[in-house]
Amino acid sequence: MKHTLSVLTENVPGVLSRVAGLFTRRGFNIDSLAVSPTEDAERSRMTITIDASRHPIEQVTKQLDKLINVIKVRDLDPENMVSRELMLLKVRADSRARSEVVQLVEIFEAKIVDVTADTLTIQLTGESDVLVQFEALMRPFGLIELVKTGVVALGRGASPT
Amino acid sequence: MKHTLSVLTENVPGVLSRVAGLFTRRGFNIDSLAVSPTEDAERSRMTITIDASRHPIEQVTKQLDKLINVIKVRDLDPENMVSRELMLLKVRADSRARSEVVQLVEIFEAKIVDVTADTLTIQLTGESDVLVQFEALMRPFGLIELVKTGVVALGRGASPT
Repeated sequence: MKHTLSVLTENVPGVLSRVAGLFTRRGFNIDSLAVSPTEDAERSRMTITIDASRHPIEQVTKQLDKLINVIKVRDLDPENMVSRELMLLKVRADSRARSEVVQLVEIFEAKIVDVTADTLTIQLTGESDVLVQFEALMRPFGLIELVKTGVVALGRGASPT
Repeated sequence: MKHTLSVLTENVPGVLSRVAGLFTRRGFNIDSLAVSPTEDAERSRMTITIDASRHPIEQVTKQLDKLINVIKVRDLDPENMVSRELMLLKVRADSRARSEVVQLVEIFEAKIVDVTADTLTIQLTGESDVLVQFEALMRPFGLIELVKTGVVALGRGASPT
């Protein structure tokens, strides 16, 4: 089962290293991780997705909570969160293929951010499964490369996560 | 000066830990980091932004390149890359403030992803400075929380990054 952890930390050197080290020692492979400063520049928020089918997630969240500079750890409820991911994708699209790619871009409400005679670079934001679906549709044209941010998420409702 | 590093790695446990550890040992504070699998599920791509005004970035990129499971390191040229970031932001917006917030959402081509009687949660993708500008405009309404993915980037043109 996939878990989405939201980890609020102080924005100081070494936190990421300690958090990553904890997962490595426990043999967890982090699926994706995104870290950036929050609304308070002195704090960062990490969003970590992890497949915890084979491991007890409670132990990891407890140990995260005990790390220096970690302020708060939340294992987000998939039923009660908004989660999004961003992808940049470079695909082969010469003059013949271009219109078909452009049509798919429009359907997915994606955006073309760079164009050459033979390629398009596309930006798409959405839920993870939408990104996977778009990637699968682009693959037959010839995927040159893609980069994803990994998931970020906030709890639904009026309260802070 | 801000640098954007694109680091292609094997998708195995421990890589993130080694990369983060390298920055910590050198006393660099990573500004943002995003890591996720690529078009090849056996490989991950990390995008790291870092303020390297006080440190020689060349040493770090060389040492990154030598780490186990690191395949390729690129210090992206700001003049020749597409870089984007995603933000989720929860802001106070009761019935009186809502129309003003909604107007700003439309101007920025952002998207409302959750609504309560007193709050809106907004999704915005763009260049980093656009996100900063939007955040500043939302702040007077009462920022409850925000999460950012950190930057991801690809080189412009037809070739792989």
